[in-house]
Amino acid sequence: MKATIERATLLKSLSHVQSVVERRNTIPILSNVLIEAAADGTLKLMATDLDLQIVETVEAQVETAGATTVSAHTLFDIARKLPEGSQVSLSAAEGKMQVIAGRARFNLQTLPRDDFPVIAEGELPTKFELSAAILRQIIDKTRFAISTEETRYYLNGIFLHVSDEAQPVLKAAATDGHRLARVTVPRPDGAAGMPDVIVPRKCVGELRKLLDEVDGSVEVSLSATKVRFGLGSAILTSKLIDGTFPDYSRVIPIANDKLLKIDPKSFMEGVDRVATIASEKTRAVKMALERDKITLSVTSPENGTAAEEVPGDYDSDGFEIGFNARYLLDILGQIEGDTVEVHLADAAAPTLIRENDTAPALYVLMPMRV
Amino acid sequence: MKATIERATLLKSLSHVQSVVERRNTIPILSNVLIEAAADGTLKLMATDLDLQIVETVEAQVETAGATTVSAHTLFDIARKLPEGSQVSLSAAEGKMQVIAGRARFNLQTLPRDDFPVIAEGELPTKFELSAAILRQIIDKTRFAISTEETRYYLNGIFLHVSDEAQPVLKAAATDGHRLARVTVPRPDGAAGMPDVIVPRKCVGELRKLLDEVDGSVEVSLSATKVRFGLGSAILTSKLIDGTFPDYSRVIPIANDKLLKIDPKSFMEGVDRVATIASEKTRAVKMALERDKITLSVTSPENGTAAEEVPGDYDSDGFEIGFNARYLLDILGQIEGDTVEVHLADAAAPTLIRENDTAPALYVLMPMRV
Repeated sequence: MKATIERATLLKSLSHVQSVVERRNTIPILSNVLIEAAADGTLKLMATDLDLQIVETVEAQVETAGATTVSAHTLFDIARKLPEGSQVSLSAAEGKMQVIAGRARFNLQTLPRDDFPVIAEGELPTKFELSAAILRQIIDKTRFAISTEETRYYLNGIFLHVSDEAQPVLKAAATDGHRLARVTVPRPDGAAGMPDVIVPRKCVGELRKLLDEVDGSVEVSLSATKVRFGLGSAILTSKLIDGTFPDYSRVIPIANDKLLKIDPKSFMEGVDRVATIASEKTRAVKMALERDKITLSVTSPENGTAAEEVPGDYDSDGFEIGFNARYLLDILGQIEGDTVEVHLADAAAPTLIRENDTAPALYVLMPMRV
Repeated sequence: MKATIERATLLKSLSHVQSVVERRNTIPILSNVLIEAAADGTLKLMATDLDLQIVETVEAQVETAGATTVSAHTLFDIARKLPEGSQVSLSAAEGKMQVIAGRARFNLQTLPRDDFPVIAEGELPTKFELSAAILRQIIDKTRFAISTEETRYYLNGIFLHVSDEAQPVLKAAATDGHRLARVTVPRPDGAAGMPDVIVPRKCVGELRKLLDEVDGSVEVSLSATKVRFGLGSAILTSKLIDGTFPDYSRVIPIANDKLLKIDPKSFMEGVDRVATIASEKTRAVKMALERDKITLSVTSPENGTAAEEVPGDYDSDGFEIGFNARYLLDILGQIEGDTVEVHLADAAAPTLIRENDTAPALYVLMPMRV
């Protein structure tokens, strides 16, 4: 293999692929990036952790086609430090890959390309397109609620499923048992009849990073066990979580009769301020609702007390309810408008938060005893 | 105590003082900041770790003079989150301090001001002024060489001493046994006869942060056991390290007969690049000197090899020498001009690095076997 590529192109591709590679690997080849130069003038860079795989294809001057694998993080670090604007020559021979740019020469250890594991995609019968903007929205408004508890592996991702309501829709949901986030978007053409899938957290994270550089649309292909995202020069393929996502619709309250309408910004700032003195462990903030007056407060045995009044529209019976400040801030941070609706029932019941009844996103937050 | 202060002023002062407060304290009051409101319209904020003390005096509207102590990190976090431009009211009564700004109210736990430990400065007979720019230079060009080995506590700071050479000078030195950095500046008026002192690393760090906001000059006062830096509204007082700094002048080579003159920028970039593949443990880079040709190289059993030629002026006998890349980069990062002089003897001898023979800074680097 022998090819020449612009340093900036190599660096950008490597920044994508190295991010999939785990820092510690018991299987040595999983630390490596597969580099494949094709006679048609392309260089393919590929990395995997056996569950998630990324392939990035870029232009290069290819002198001799071929392939090899070298340490992804090392090659990325080298590319970062090479002079700006330089041309990088990559050539593989006799178990080494030579990297030359300017006056610098590297001879890197390689591992055989044939040992590099590739995720067998199999058939991906469902195929649809989703605009990058909508996919970004789906991820941003749900990922914070993904559970990190490994024992509840079926909650360690974003659940995607289609549903026929007044309109056919695609729904994305994530929950950790304390809060739930759901986004509903129109069902894209081709998504009818797709299987319910859970996209793992790591795939969501890598996808989101790639989406920062994508306009236009993303090609989504999936089966019951794999998903593939085509984003221009990058293709991300992931195994899906093999589990059953709970029937979350049952926890979305439909009969909460107390409505608070409030400015999400001042609500958020108030929660953030009083939470300063909350103990790291509980992060509990109390919300006392009275007619058009909301009082946020925190009592901490170590630090003292904090209170702040926030104006809001509320005309039901007064009561008090507690929330985890972090969870409340996560949700409020996703509200874009200048009003948020908080639908409450009582101090022990799940609370529904949404911008309004036509907003694509909806959040459910479990209260805390305070 | 009752006083009102602008949030921006409070925040800036707290950012200085909280930085002295350790995150974990076995003595509770060391987590606190002493706040003292004086009838002359000033607020004094003070923090200490028993070795280092900072006092910051700012303007405030004082209604009732008095003092109390509250958690420094908590009050800093609160000040950060208070609305921009707000006026903050601080009032202490009955074991609590109330903080009010806008609609937010905090009641913080206090500890008695009388329990707050103050470093007794004693007499500080030596007094001189040093321009902030020179003090910044002294710190920046030496602090990286301060030892972090706690057993060699006498190397855990910057050594300051005066000396009569062709001109009377003040010298600052730091070393960890592998490298030495020394800066020589003209002796300020008042520094004649000052005792040799070792300023601890933490004091150096806090002083350097404060210097970012200071123009003009800094008042330095010291005895054999304490030092005080007066920087406008802030006064930093520190105990000095009670130990003997080694006679470092003996390790500064004076007869190194091989001179390399090289562009520090391309030298640095070359070292940084080849060091990419150096093992984390040794970070060894080899430098092969030939007539006007310097070859930097690294061999790593795991990663492979790297080499880069860097042009340089050299006309002595060729030989090879190894350095710790990190140490070499630390030094080269402090060279401002477009040439650096590297005075070498042989592969085992200390190497002298300096911009030229009139530069205030001088560095000695021990080679490594490679």
